[in-house]
Amino acid sequence: MASMPRLVLEAIEPVVDGGAFAAKRVVGEDVTVTATLFGDGHEQLAAELLWRAGDGDEWQRVAMEQLPNDRWRARFPLTRLGRHQFVVEGWLDRWGGFRRDFRKKVVAEVAQPVDHAEGRAIVAEAIARMTGDVRKQLAGLLPRLESASEADSVTLLLSDELAQLMATADDRPFRIVSAPALVDAERVEARFSSWYEIFPRSITEDKARHGTFADVIGILPHVRDMGFDTLYFPPIHPIGTANRKGPNNTLTPGPDDVGSPYAIGSPDGGHDALHPELGSFDDFRRLVAAAHEHGLEIALDFAIQCSPDHPWLKEHPGWFAWRPDGSMKYAENPPKKYQDIVNVDFYAPDAIPGLWNALRDVILLWVAEGVKTFRVDNPHTKTLPFWEWMIGEVRSLHPEVIFLSEAFTRPTMMYRLAKVGFSQSYTYFTWRDHKAELTEYIEELTTTAPKEFYRPHFFVNTPDINPHFLQTGGRPAHRIRAVLAATLSGLWGVYSGFELCDAAPLGPGKEEYLDSEKYEIRPYQARRTGDIVDDITLLNHLRRAHPALQTHLNTRFYATDSDQIIWYGKPAVGDGALAEMIMVMVNMDPHNAHGCTYEVPLWQFGLPDHGTIAVEDLAKGNSFQLHGKAQTIHLTPDEPYRIWRFSLPKDAS
Amino acid sequence: MASMPRLVLEAIEPVVDGGAFAAKRVVGEDVTVTATLFGDGHEQLAAELLWRAGDGDEWQRVAMEQLPNDRWRARFPLTRLGRHQFVVEGWLDRWGGFRRDFRKKVVAEVAQPVDHAEGRAIVAEAIARMTGDVRKQLAGLLPRLESASEADSVTLLLSDELAQLMATADDRPFRIVSAPALVDAERVEARFSSWYEIFPRSITEDKARHGTFADVIGILPHVRDMGFDTLYFPPIHPIGTANRKGPNNTLTPGPDDVGSPYAIGSPDGGHDALHPELGSFDDFRRLVAAAHEHGLEIALDFAIQCSPDHPWLKEHPGWFAWRPDGSMKYAENPPKKYQDIVNVDFYAPDAIPGLWNALRDVILLWVAEGVKTFRVDNPHTKTLPFWEWMIGEVRSLHPEVIFLSEAFTRPTMMYRLAKVGFSQSYTYFTWRDHKAELTEYIEELTTTAPKEFYRPHFFVNTPDINPHFLQTGGRPAHRIRAVLAATLSGLWGVYSGFELCDAAPLGPGKEEYLDSEKYEIRPYQARRTGDIVDDITLLNHLRRAHPALQTHLNTRFYATDSDQIIWYGKPAVGDGALAEMIMVMVNMDPHNAHGCTYEVPLWQFGLPDHGTIAVEDLAKGNSFQLHGKAQTIHLTPDEPYRIWRFSLPKDAS
Repeated sequence: MASMPRLVLEAIEPVVDGGAFAAKRVVGEDVTVTATLFGDGHEQLAAELLWRAGDGDEWQRVAMEQLPNDRWRARFPLTRLGRHQFVVEGWLDRWGGFRRDFRKKVVAEVAQPVDHAEGRAIVAEAIARMTGDVRKQLAGLLPRLESASEADSVTLLLSDELAQLMATADDRPFRIVSAPALVDAERVEARFSSWYEIFPRSITEDKARHGTFADVIGILPHVRDMGFDTLYFPPIHPIGTANRKGPNNTLTPGPDDVGSPYAIGSPDGGHDALHPELGSFDDFRRLVAAAHEHGLEIALDFAIQCSPDHPWLKEHPGWFAWRPDGSMKYAENPPKKYQDIVNVDFYAPDAIPGLWNALRDVILLWVAEGVKTFRVDNPHTKTLPFWEWMIGEVRSLHPEVIFLSEAFTRPTMMYRLAKVGFSQSYTYFTWRDHKAELTEYIEELTTTAPKEFYRPHFFVNTPDINPHFLQTGGRPAHRIRAVLAATLSGLWGVYSGFELCDAAPLGPGKEEYLDSEKYEIRPYQARRTGDIVDDITLLNHLRRAHPALQTHLNTRFYATDSDQIIWYGKPAVGDGALAEMIMVMVNMDPHNAHGCTYEVPLWQFGLPDHGTIAVEDLAKGNSFQLHGKAQTIHLTPDEPYRIWRFSLPKDAS
Repeated sequence: MASMPRLVLEAIEPVVDGGAFAAKRVVGEDVTVTATLFGDGHEQLAAELLWRAGDGDEWQRVAMEQLPNDRWRARFPLTRLGRHQFVVEGWLDRWGGFRRDFRKKVVAEVAQPVDHAEGRAIVAEAIARMTGDVRKQLAGLLPRLESASEADSVTLLLSDELAQLMATADDRPFRIVSAPALVDAERVEARFSSWYEIFPRSITEDKARHGTFADVIGILPHVRDMGFDTLYFPPIHPIGTANRKGPNNTLTPGPDDVGSPYAIGSPDGGHDALHPELGSFDDFRRLVAAAHEHGLEIALDFAIQCSPDHPWLKEHPGWFAWRPDGSMKYAENPPKKYQDIVNVDFYAPDAIPGLWNALRDVILLWVAEGVKTFRVDNPHTKTLPFWEWMIGEVRSLHPEVIFLSEAFTRPTMMYRLAKVGFSQSYTYFTWRDHKAELTEYIEELTTTAPKEFYRPHFFVNTPDINPHFLQTGGRPAHRIRAVLAATLSGLWGVYSGFELCDAAPLGPGKEEYLDSEKYEIRPYQARRTGDIVDDITLLNHLRRAHPALQTHLNTRFYATDSDQIIWYGKPAVGDGALAEMIMVMVNMDPHNAHGCTYEVPLWQFGLPDHGTIAVEDLAKGNSFQLHGKAQTIHLTPDEPYRIWRFSLPKDAS
């Protein structure tokens, strides 16, 4: 009965699923931990935050401060990569409670001799249970207290010196300790990076000549000038010939058709090999090195499926599912079949541990080649325990490795993949082109449970997704989507062609690209009349210059009276009163101009409704002031957005 | 690695704190259980809900139905009082998945012989692992399948007969089972009751004559006529004389002053004794029996504190805290002291188990005397493990016993007390007299975590709380608060005097009553000119007649354009399309009339915005129709509320 804890410790944050998974942070950030701690009556409580990086480390401690409504708070710094643990400890602070009550009585002039005696009794108890230095010091203080005048006794009982000794001697009655919670400290690129996707074989001036890693080196300056930091390739492995797909996903390829790089594996090798026409391992290493010199990193695709020509089918038939007639079980979603692709079976007879280890070793091979970022294809069709185990294994050796989950499925699964270890995730952003639905989606990501573990990577397009909005909205639509992606999230991505406003669909109502690079070589073009390279360059520059643009978590929406004009602000990460905020306004209609009255969030700066805010237009470079909370604006498709920096006017500070 | 579960089972509802505490329901209700269950890929899953009443019972099972977004749902009935358990079980439904995919292929006319063979292989596996009847039946089917024509094979493979056999033979691969969750089934009065509070000693025509239990019997018909079902008494135990308080909480009582009944204990006895002037145990038993005859139950106060004259101080000094000079530790909140009251110390040297058992035995004594409902005074100043243990002990013997928590403190503690076992709780309702704050509070109670465990008891006043709103708002204010309390929650309470609009405060700005019954006898009056007994009688009548008014959980707020006029609806509990709803509109300003345009929630009945709803005015008895979504109304302080029954017009259904 009395063994149940007297104190209650609950609602600790950040905790993901009761501590089963890690909250995601990056090195250099502080983790702010809050907890609810309370007990019966008016007792004084105390709390400490304990944390450590890695299992073997010593726990470090810091006192928590008490906030209203039984909340407590403290912070700890993330100074190195990897898994961290923290716990919260609370207890009944007997001396603190005595001191608090005694001080009130002294102030009210009602302290009695028995109140002094009560203090001495607590000190005597502490002496009885201590040894060493603290005991010696307390034992020296007690006779002083006993023989002191009333005034001296008050001074001594309320002294910081005694409080400190009593804290050291505290036996922490009714101590309660939370279950350990986990935090992953990743490198900053897990939260903030700008991706550019190309098919290396398309880096050629001529469709007839297969691009190479050497060719890719040639465009690195251009990619870097646009401000990207991550260059991502679809699979670069040998491509199977069995059931090869032709242009536009046809089933009748010609002899020169290059096939889909997602049909991985041929007699030249599988996931651990390079497509011979792209180059050798030496060529690849030269490319990785050149990219690093340009401040770029290479991200690779991890697509687990195999072409029917993949060496594993012969070497490890026990990793696959076979049918009663001895045929392969192809990927299928009945009645559809995908006959250029075979899936491994994670629970096949020989799969554990053979297949699981082999897949992990593929990742470790590319990590050894200098690749630290992997975009994972369709992880939701592979078993979750594999991801949890594999990512854990890789990150225990290489905590700098980042995995991006390319799962477009139900939210439960997308969130779960993030929990089991994916640093970043594809999202529904691509299809959220109305103000209300985009606002609702961002608020789900920034204010509900996923904020602790789900980092949204906002791709404006992908080789598989040519959004209807871009197909029909032309250049204004591309600019609108670029601004939204680049300013709403710390992570955004562009699949090449987007910057040229290439958006021809395979057919009416189709979301695929016409003449998709997945099935053919499309010679790369850096610039074109009417491209939006300048917008992208500006956006990436602003993202580097302003930490406020390096996360989605700080996004706050403000009111406009137009359902076409979205308006949000992002304060800089950090503590203290708001001194500046990046503000973004976008007309989400690529076809029509819209005006609105919008609300200037003066209150965020502590200003009254008639106050004045200084505005720097970060796109145009000019500065001005806005007076008062209600303002009007007109945004045309030719100038569909504003990016402003709000700050307190110099004379107001 | 592969020992991690392949399937994910999460977000099970109702679950309180991961299963640490019970969700609260009442006998006769169904418990609707929902859960999220999913896995990788496109596999077919299946789920069952298992439940039992009591530890020793057999688990009962029911299949769960699949809803969108990986949600699953099933229900189980509560047919008896007490603690119930449930778990959710999910697994990969191999035969169900085969059947689903095979049917698609058959429909698309692409089924191949190997697809039939795959079905037979699954059947053969089932035969291999089964024994007995099912094995025999499956073994009989297999040769029929093997020799069947294609058409017959299709029919048999898709047959319900085979599906049923395969379900019985299912080895439930990748089975996952949730942790057990708890549900407490209480009697309906835990959720729906109407309380009336009196000081029995005041049931007298003359201040000089102490009222008795026999006197209380005399007013039972009046209490019952007002529609109350629970008659609640402050403590009825002997009252101490040491440091007795005089009228209006003065420290200088006269010799005839009766003292506060909360100063429990005298040489006549303690918590297990009756105040001699109220009557004997026989008198009390007669009162309990008479109350039952009138359809009323008696609720007692459980106030743990002791007067300095309580027998326990001498008999069990080890249950109390003593100071270094040998004096009592009085209740205090420095620099305030409450010298007529001494608190027991739940962690004093002899407290465990002596004190804890003694307190439990006090409750068991009154239960044996026919009292099944206890209002507990200030439970938040007593240790939580005591409540969890004591309520558990009492309810394991007497699951019909109801405890009401009288804690006015921080929400964390108020909610925790409900979690550890209190069936009902006092609330902040008494101080929520503005529309916005009351709406926000009700929405917190009906849509966030507390909805599963916290039953709000809306008292309009108490002997300690004479709200400013009632002091200043006169008769209209009393009617307003009565309507709000009686229609917002299934639980409401009136402390006598409220119905007479007695609201004289102790002084300006004070929340206490003048000449409080806590310190003196105030002869009871049943009616008075200008009382609101008719309103209360109507409200209690409507509450009995309409199940929609027997819970707070179904409250939905609708729009009006006045911040003084609150407007809400309560659909009847149960499934199916909305056929009727009780609607309440209240002008929350007791001083001024207000008009508004309000929204008729036609959409709740499946009606268009120009539709027609039938209205029965439940207060006045007349009927009419409302056409269209926007309506206007004017509410004066003399007629501050409407209670309507909305239903589909007869000709529309």
